[in-house]
Amino acid sequence: MQFELTSEYLEKLKDAIESKNVVFLNHQLHELYAPDIGNIINQLNDADGAFIYGLLDEVTAPDVLLELHDDIRESLLATFSSKKIAEQIDNMDSDDAADVISELPENIQGEVLSHIEDLEQASDIAELINFEEGTAGSLMAKELVSVYSFETVNACIEEIRKQAEDVNVMYAVYVVDNNERLIGMLSLKKLIISHPLAKVEEIYEPDIQYVKTSTASEEVAAIMQKFDLVVLPVVDQFGRLVGRITIDDVVDVMREAAEENIQRMSGLTDDVDSNDNMLRISRARIPWLLVGMCGGIVGSRIIGSYDEQIQTHQAMAYFIPLIGAMGGNVGVQSSAIIVQGLANNTLLGTNIGSKLLKELGVGLINGLICAALIWGYCFLIEDWKLAATVSIALFTVILFASFLGTFVPLTMNRFKINPALATGPFVTTLNDIVGITIYFLVGRILYGMI
Amino acid sequence: MQFELTSEYLEKLKDAIESKNVVFLNHQLHELYAPDIGNIINQLNDADGAFIYGLLDEVTAPDVLLELHDDIRESLLATFSSKKIAEQIDNMDSDDAADVISELPENIQGEVLSHIEDLEQASDIAELINFEEGTAGSLMAKELVSVYSFETVNACIEEIRKQAEDVNVMYAVYVVDNNERLIGMLSLKKLIISHPLAKVEEIYEPDIQYVKTSTASEEVAAIMQKFDLVVLPVVDQFGRLVGRITIDDVVDVMREAAEENIQRMSGLTDDVDSNDNMLRISRARIPWLLVGMCGGIVGSRIIGSYDEQIQTHQAMAYFIPLIGAMGGNVGVQSSAIIVQGLANNTLLGTNIGSKLLKELGVGLINGLICAALIWGYCFLIEDWKLAATVSIALFTVILFASFLGTFVPLTMNRFKINPALATGPFVTTLNDIVGITIYFLVGRILYGMI
Repeated sequence: MQFELTSEYLEKLKDAIESKNVVFLNHQLHELYAPDIGNIINQLNDADGAFIYGLLDEVTAPDVLLELHDDIRESLLATFSSKKIAEQIDNMDSDDAADVISELPENIQGEVLSHIEDLEQASDIAELINFEEGTAGSLMAKELVSVYSFETVNACIEEIRKQAEDVNVMYAVYVVDNNERLIGMLSLKKLIISHPLAKVEEIYEPDIQYVKTSTASEEVAAIMQKFDLVVLPVVDQFGRLVGRITIDDVVDVMREAAEENIQRMSGLTDDVDSNDNMLRISRARIPWLLVGMCGGIVGSRIIGSYDEQIQTHQAMAYFIPLIGAMGGNVGVQSSAIIVQGLANNTLLGTNIGSKLLKELGVGLINGLICAALIWGYCFLIEDWKLAATVSIALFTVILFASFLGTFVPLTMNRFKINPALATGPFVTTLNDIVGITIYFLVGRILYGMI
Repeated sequence: MQFELTSEYLEKLKDAIESKNVVFLNHQLHELYAPDIGNIINQLNDADGAFIYGLLDEVTAPDVLLELHDDIRESLLATFSSKKIAEQIDNMDSDDAADVISELPENIQGEVLSHIEDLEQASDIAELINFEEGTAGSLMAKELVSVYSFETVNACIEEIRKQAEDVNVMYAVYVVDNNERLIGMLSLKKLIISHPLAKVEEIYEPDIQYVKTSTASEEVAAIMQKFDLVVLPVVDQFGRLVGRITIDDVVDVMREAAEENIQRMSGLTDDVDSNDNMLRISRARIPWLLVGMCGGIVGSRIIGSYDEQIQTHQAMAYFIPLIGAMGGNVGVQSSAIIVQGLANNTLLGTNIGSKLLKELGVGLINGLICAALIWGYCFLIEDWKLAATVSIALFTVILFASFLGTFVPLTMNRFKINPALATGPFVTTLNDIVGITIYFLVGRILYGMI
């Protein structure tokens, strides 16, 4: 039932574009939904994409525009006149239109706005592009239906008929007082099943959730998720109703937050995707590589200071990677679960001490298992001295890594640093250094004693 | 504006529970929303949680029950009679009620169902618990409003009045034919603004998205996200309308999928959270630790086979951790971006070759930067031979790790294995082994030549 884009299909379209087979292309595009067409243009080069876009009718084109990647939309719009851009966004929801306009170079923005025919739309957009990114104001749309509390259900339905023209999807009717201040909500269901002469003030729901234009996007997402909301009204600093946020925009915010977390955990400093250019990708990665390199250099100094030990017990050198890798793995496992708990708020109200104890318990179990196995292996291939050194060191490293993997993200969170940073290269590097130190220290003590 | 649970507040509640200060507790609970109360009970021990739950009124209690963690809900319900459980779920949405019932021991499920007073609710639940987890059937609710296509708007509104009693939130009215088969949708907005005597068949929207009960949850989430849907109808194998899925359930599916990805990337094999018991957490972690240990043992054999090299050029041993760590870091960075692209479908239709080339390009840039820096460092503290060995090895390792980090997840994806597995311990371990081999190989060649 769902369309799935394949490389074969894409090749067929490219051939049709090259041979300007407009009949075939029109037939194909007619069968597809806007998100699929957007996905196709995202995979094409600029010229081919513009050709496809040019074939779309005026209803589909704006929908497709919204599905394009930022950079691809930028190149496409760069080839359009201000008037043509204005035509594309004239019928968009105000929040989408504002997103598109705010991506344009500043000197063009005003020009595009002046070409928008619907004056209300133009002023809505002009208002929206002023809100700071990452706030409720930047997420909200201006299209909403509101009624005064003193109206009757009948008058209300009449009002909705008038207002609803601009509103594509309507989930609720907001109720405001004489000063346009939000005082509650009237569900469409209630409206339909209430007596035509009932007053709004008798049937509306006063206890509703709302946010201010300055509320952070993350909090908007948290509130909508917490209360399972589909739409959330936005008020200005005087409590006046100025917009609404719908769940689809918030789903995007949530997805972006999850992606950012994964990127931080993987040692990427910047928001990049695999379609970005090489230099940008390279720049996003180098900082953590340099941290890793500094860690490696510190590690080399530590090993260097145990020179004699390697000389007399050469097998010590063999297990350096094992100790480092295990410390890193355990650290990442511990910190991942903490970072996730922090992102979920499931760690709220629990104290750090009990978490640490539990992680140490898990480290104890897994440390004993791993130490026993490596003891057996080393004993078989070498001697019991090496076996004792490697297994005791491994056990200690696993315990330490469990501790650091828990402690570091919790501490970072307390100091308002994104704890996802801790799960990646930072904890790995730290555990590498700590692991090697423990390993050679154990070696010195054991070999010194025996 | 939003309530935030603090340890201090939690302590106050615990004190009040201990001293059975019901007046204080009732006052506090009255001020809170169900999700907040659920969050509080999640942090309390079983006895304290049950005490708080016992204070809730019959409207709030079921809402709070749905906010509890699975294990905490399980312990709470275990203390209730079947009749009392039935009372809690009598007024829940059918999908939530089915979720709660399906968590109960099988021998109790039938008993609870027989105590549910609303017979329609009981039969809805009995139907829903039979759907396999992870399908649209297990996500859907039975509460929906549907009308026949031959009805008028007026008859329709009358019908909605009757049906809407059971439906908490109503987004749309579904249109079915004489055989109850889904043929389209009527938005409430359209219903409100249409003429009372208009026929449904003249004003409904026939081109709508729907899924079957057997459709996978991930596909449901993908469709709702793609088309920005708030609600999606579900049909049986004959095309008959049997339920609807709302976006809040799908948001949960999406969040769980994102969390699972992070867990796979961090070397956790099972779905665990930090509230699970130690043995369960330990079991989820040990498999990848053992993989890492095997990798470490392979590494030790490789280093062992270059015994002489370490003896004559001891400084070679110092940089083992640096080489291993850098290989791991680069591998994770490369694979994270690929895994994310695969999860997003932004890599669809692009060929593997061009991705590999780009990653190698990025590896080339970052490899050159890192190699130059480490050359300088080694040259300063040792000699140019070591500097040449370490920097050439590091450069090669970074290139290789870029290649593996891209190639492995793409290949896993092609063979339908979750590519997130590749970003974690697997790629790290592989790069460790490859890195050490390259390092000593370069050492042998260079020291042999010079």
